[in-house]
Amino acid sequence: MSAKLLSGKEVSEKMLADVLADSEALREKGIIPKLAVLRLGEDPGSISYEKSIKTRMAKSKIEVESIVMDVTVSQEEFVAKIQEVNADKSINGCLIFKPLPAQINEDEIKYLLAPEKDPDALNPTNLGKLMIMDNKGFFPCTAEGVMELLKYYEIDVKGKDITIINNSNVFGKPLAIMLTNEFATVSICHIFTKSVKEYTLKSDIVITGCGVYGLLTPDMFKEGTIVIDVAMAQKKDANKQFVLDENGKKIRTGDCREDCVEKAGMITSATPGCGGGTGPITTALLAQHLIKGCKMQNGIE
Amino acid sequence: MSAKLLSGKEVSEKMLADVLADSEALREKGIIPKLAVLRLGEDPGSISYEKSIKTRMAKSKIEVESIVMDVTVSQEEFVAKIQEVNADKSINGCLIFKPLPAQINEDEIKYLLAPEKDPDALNPTNLGKLMIMDNKGFFPCTAEGVMELLKYYEIDVKGKDITIINNSNVFGKPLAIMLTNEFATVSICHIFTKSVKEYTLKSDIVITGCGVYGLLTPDMFKEGTIVIDVAMAQKKDANKQFVLDENGKKIRTGDCREDCVEKAGMITSATPGCGGGTGPITTALLAQHLIKGCKMQNGIE
Repeated sequence: MSAKLLSGKEVSEKMLADVLADSEALREKGIIPKLAVLRLGEDPGSISYEKSIKTRMAKSKIEVESIVMDVTVSQEEFVAKIQEVNADKSINGCLIFKPLPAQINEDEIKYLLAPEKDPDALNPTNLGKLMIMDNKGFFPCTAEGVMELLKYYEIDVKGKDITIINNSNVFGKPLAIMLTNEFATVSICHIFTKSVKEYTLKSDIVITGCGVYGLLTPDMFKEGTIVIDVAMAQKKDANKQFVLDENGKKIRTGDCREDCVEKAGMITSATPGCGGGTGPITTALLAQHLIKGCKMQNGIE
Repeated sequence: MSAKLLSGKEVSEKMLADVLADSEALREKGIIPKLAVLRLGEDPGSISYEKSIKTRMAKSKIEVESIVMDVTVSQEEFVAKIQEVNADKSINGCLIFKPLPAQINEDEIKYLLAPEKDPDALNPTNLGKLMIMDNKGFFPCTAEGVMELLKYYEIDVKGKDITIINNSNVFGKPLAIMLTNEFATVSICHIFTKSVKEYTLKSDIVITGCGVYGLLTPDMFKEGTIVIDVAMAQKKDANKQFVLDENGKKIRTGDCREDCVEKAGMITSATPGCGGGTGPITTALLAQHLIKGCKMQNGIE
């Protein structure tokens, strides 16, 4: 029996429709939701990312203001700019592009951006809000994307045994907290876990995000398990060489091997045939967060 | 075979000796470590707690300044007082006594106390620092106490299977993060877990903190398991009636039943005969945190 495919794209479309409605309602009140992107220098990757953010935000009727500083900017100038962003009532959120140049002390910077203008959860205060379930916080998007997927498909996690394979700051740790906040029983596995399979085999839900194609295989979980794979990987063979498609291109996958779909009860993964993964939700969350921040800052809801 | 008893008292004595040495070194530099306690009103329990803090801090040569405000204080006055504490260079840390009266908005207050003057981890920013392993943070004392115990007895957690029975903001959640930061494989159980025993039975280390005598029994773990019980409970019988000692007094226990000591490899618990529990470490951490804050604020180390 083949798994029900969970579509991150479908979830994101619903989210973005809600975001657009909220954005339009704000505009009717004379409030223009605006995201600032703060970029140092002219790195082509950053410029391209900035363009894609503008395209995406436009779909949610969110303005984007580019703030570009020279890559040689001093810590003092950079700090002053962030304080300016914090004080600017027309800006509802700010993305600070990384990596930052060596003269910038990121440890200082991340605590400086106002938590309510931090849709990307750069400021650790937002992670602290997650720990105490303060819903005014912004949480890391990939982790929150899993919660959005579960909510959309009405998958109740209370009392469920869940294994997360990943313990990073941006995914495994915040997701474990979100899931225990909902009273799932959560196990956090990683590279030093003695036997990941011992955990996944007894889980109702297995969540992975390692970027290693083939990390999750059907022998590792029970028939009917819900598999959520947020990884972005490329297919490699047993000799760790890239597998190419008929056009000579690398094949995008998640952590799942293709045959996971035959044993799981529900699945989403970037691995072909497995529902596509949660990437589109992660992307939609940036817009959702910006609108949430805009509403909070304007005392709406 | 009976378990090796882990003594929270022994750990705390070593910690307090280190704290005292640090405190004396600071005084030699002309720096007087000082804790402020901010109390609203004359609640007898709070006054008694304040006295015990003074006695304890005196042993570490830490001054205690009592700041007492009327229980009818307004939010504005309370906020102003905390800002005063934040700005006062002679104060290295502040405990805000709870519960706060109804007119005080605790949600605002907790974000207000400067994180570096927050030895009790009231400010969620300190929990965020824990998430990203920023060691300048202050972490909840009962959770950190477990880490101190493990360190003192040289119990390496990397790759170990560990079950925590508790998912509270002040214990289970922060401890899970601390342990995964050290690459233990952590499972977080609680009241809605289908089978706690399924987790504890395969664990190398079982950590409990529920306040329910008899919650942990030897059938729930393997021979040789390390059992750490931070709970403060009182012994009850099968009918949930208090069991009294020969003097008619209630019997202090942890979550462990007495016979856990016969099967565990190492144990600490407030249950009689089980090593005493981690309470003394929790207490010592307040002094340790105050000294750490004092050093940070004075640019030492």
